[in-house]
Amino acid sequence: MTMNVLGYAAHSPTDALAPFHFERREPRANDVVIEILYCGVCHSDLHTARNDWQNTTYPVVPGHEIIGRVVSAGAAATRFKVGDQVGVGCMVDSCQHCAACEQGLEQYCEAFPILTYNSVDPHDQMTTFGGYSQKIVVSDQFVLKVPDGLDLAGAAPLLCAGITTWSPLRHWKVGKGSRVAVIGLGGLGHMALKLAKALQAEVTLFSRSPGKEADARRLGADHIVISTDAEQMEAANNRFDLIIDTVPYIHDLNPYLPSLALNGTLVLVGYLGDLDPMLNTIPLIMGRKSVAGSLIGGIAETQEMLDFCGQHGITSDIEVITIQAINEAYERMLKSDVKYRFVIDMVSLQAA
Amino acid sequence: MTMNVLGYAAHSPTDALAPFHFERREPRANDVVIEILYCGVCHSDLHTARNDWQNTTYPVVPGHEIIGRVVSAGAAATRFKVGDQVGVGCMVDSCQHCAACEQGLEQYCEAFPILTYNSVDPHDQMTTFGGYSQKIVVSDQFVLKVPDGLDLAGAAPLLCAGITTWSPLRHWKVGKGSRVAVIGLGGLGHMALKLAKALQAEVTLFSRSPGKEADARRLGADHIVISTDAEQMEAANNRFDLIIDTVPYIHDLNPYLPSLALNGTLVLVGYLGDLDPMLNTIPLIMGRKSVAGSLIGGIAETQEMLDFCGQHGITSDIEVITIQAINEAYERMLKSDVKYRFVIDMVSLQAA
Repeated sequence: MTMNVLGYAAHSPTDALAPFHFERREPRANDVVIEILYCGVCHSDLHTARNDWQNTTYPVVPGHEIIGRVVSAGAAATRFKVGDQVGVGCMVDSCQHCAACEQGLEQYCEAFPILTYNSVDPHDQMTTFGGYSQKIVVSDQFVLKVPDGLDLAGAAPLLCAGITTWSPLRHWKVGKGSRVAVIGLGGLGHMALKLAKALQAEVTLFSRSPGKEADARRLGADHIVISTDAEQMEAANNRFDLIIDTVPYIHDLNPYLPSLALNGTLVLVGYLGDLDPMLNTIPLIMGRKSVAGSLIGGIAETQEMLDFCGQHGITSDIEVITIQAINEAYERMLKSDVKYRFVIDMVSLQAA
Repeated sequence: MTMNVLGYAAHSPTDALAPFHFERREPRANDVVIEILYCGVCHSDLHTARNDWQNTTYPVVPGHEIIGRVVSAGAAATRFKVGDQVGVGCMVDSCQHCAACEQGLEQYCEAFPILTYNSVDPHDQMTTFGGYSQKIVVSDQFVLKVPDGLDLAGAAPLLCAGITTWSPLRHWKVGKGSRVAVIGLGGLGHMALKLAKALQAEVTLFSRSPGKEADARRLGADHIVISTDAEQMEAANNRFDLIIDTVPYIHDLNPYLPSLALNGTLVLVGYLGDLDPMLNTIPLIMGRKSVAGSLIGGIAETQEMLDFCGQHGITSDIEVITIQAINEAYERMLKSDVKYRFVIDMVSLQAA
């Protein structure tokens, strides 16, 4: 039997999010039914609610940083039992048989992964609805275990902001002795600092302006380089093995390329679009440097990241809000007025 | 004692190259004096002769694909003896103690390598003069051994075109099972096909127009993809682990990025400048793809490449010219009218 669920949805690009009742599918044998306790608020939620990417199907229920508790598990979902604390991130399914899926890199599924919201589930052709809701029904392969001891609200952003920065740190083999820099100090950037530091890298924050220094150091930065200071930029030449660029809007990469070490990589995790101003190839060729991209992370590495965070006591710095405050939170996000992630306490939905 | 040497030099951006007498340094203890037998003609020679990069000191004697015979070796240059057949490529010195040099990657020397021509030798402040000349004096660490059995004229372009394509093939670990594509079928491109094939990769040539198919297959291509054919480009999606882009002028990379496999890299080896049109980051992020650059290769890997070419009987396809024909050859290069590299037979210099 399908189940009727209360959530918050946008009905058009200009509507505020508002209460919305919808049906969750009848659980399949491998499904896990999850009562949602917390849901992080990602920039993608806002972009999708407002149709910034021109691909939104309305109504849309955003939310893909989900923490909850198992309320039932299908007969084939044997890894989970009632009461388990679990997470769901950006994906709820994938083809499971392409080369990417077979490597555990479902985010790069050649048939494209089924996203947690605003996707069509190929099993039943229903639109997926995200975590701004009471419950979610998810195939067990896309359900993560949340280690004991982590603050559940602070763990929610690990499911997107955490894994999006973890995946490149691991892919480019960051560890003791690595020099990592982070561009942008928001939801993703602050997680990148924490995770890179816990991986024992030497960590630098690029910042356009002074003033973030104390916070950056608290989060894990060993150094801060003011990117508008020519002298500081010059001093950072040939330094970083990996630069994680979390900036979500158009920006100039060229000033950062000289600061890559030989064989270094600048990996974009936040910006989809044209590189304007144009990328200059000279620093790439003169130091075998790369500009790359990275998209969230696979399910196995998401679990690895959660386990790592459990061991190291890492969660996101958050501001807990009620679901009723979501529209105001979006406005504050647009002004970067959040340190560093909003998380919705879903108990508030009961008052909706 | 210095030695007076005859070469061919340009005296201004618009002058034709003409005979020019100059002094080679008095050999140091670790120097090797080489009688030049053949010198390949690289696009960089032409760019430098005509000051296309605005960094030419005149007079300039181009040439950095040098094959010759040892006529004397200093007391400390014990690896070489009179009569050895040897090669000299793009570099004749480097700092030898930076992180890059210590890894055998002298091309990325943090102090910048001393190039075979148009550089200033820090030992004596003399301008370096290249291989369009009778003799050259080179520090033994920058002299390569040319395996027996290779055609010496055909081996000359290995010193630049060969190593420039070999280095990325090795750095990105191309071998059996790898899928490699090459953009551009010139001096570099034809070497990339030969070397990738000999490394047992599955090799594809991207070509803008039909007609190169037979030649490409002869050189090592298993497939040809006509890049102006939308259907063929679509069929190549997600296919290549490495694309070696040898195009030496401004061009659009965006059409090629979808054909990179997950984790694939497009490496630029020929174009220094802005990427116009702008690079779009979406394919990078959606498949963890990279755009990278690579510059020639280190001395150790140049020796490795020469030895590999010796084992596999690989040389460049060349057209042998006299030094007197160099200016005409430049004009033909500008029209891509060479298959695939001009090589100067230095015997002709005796007639100058």
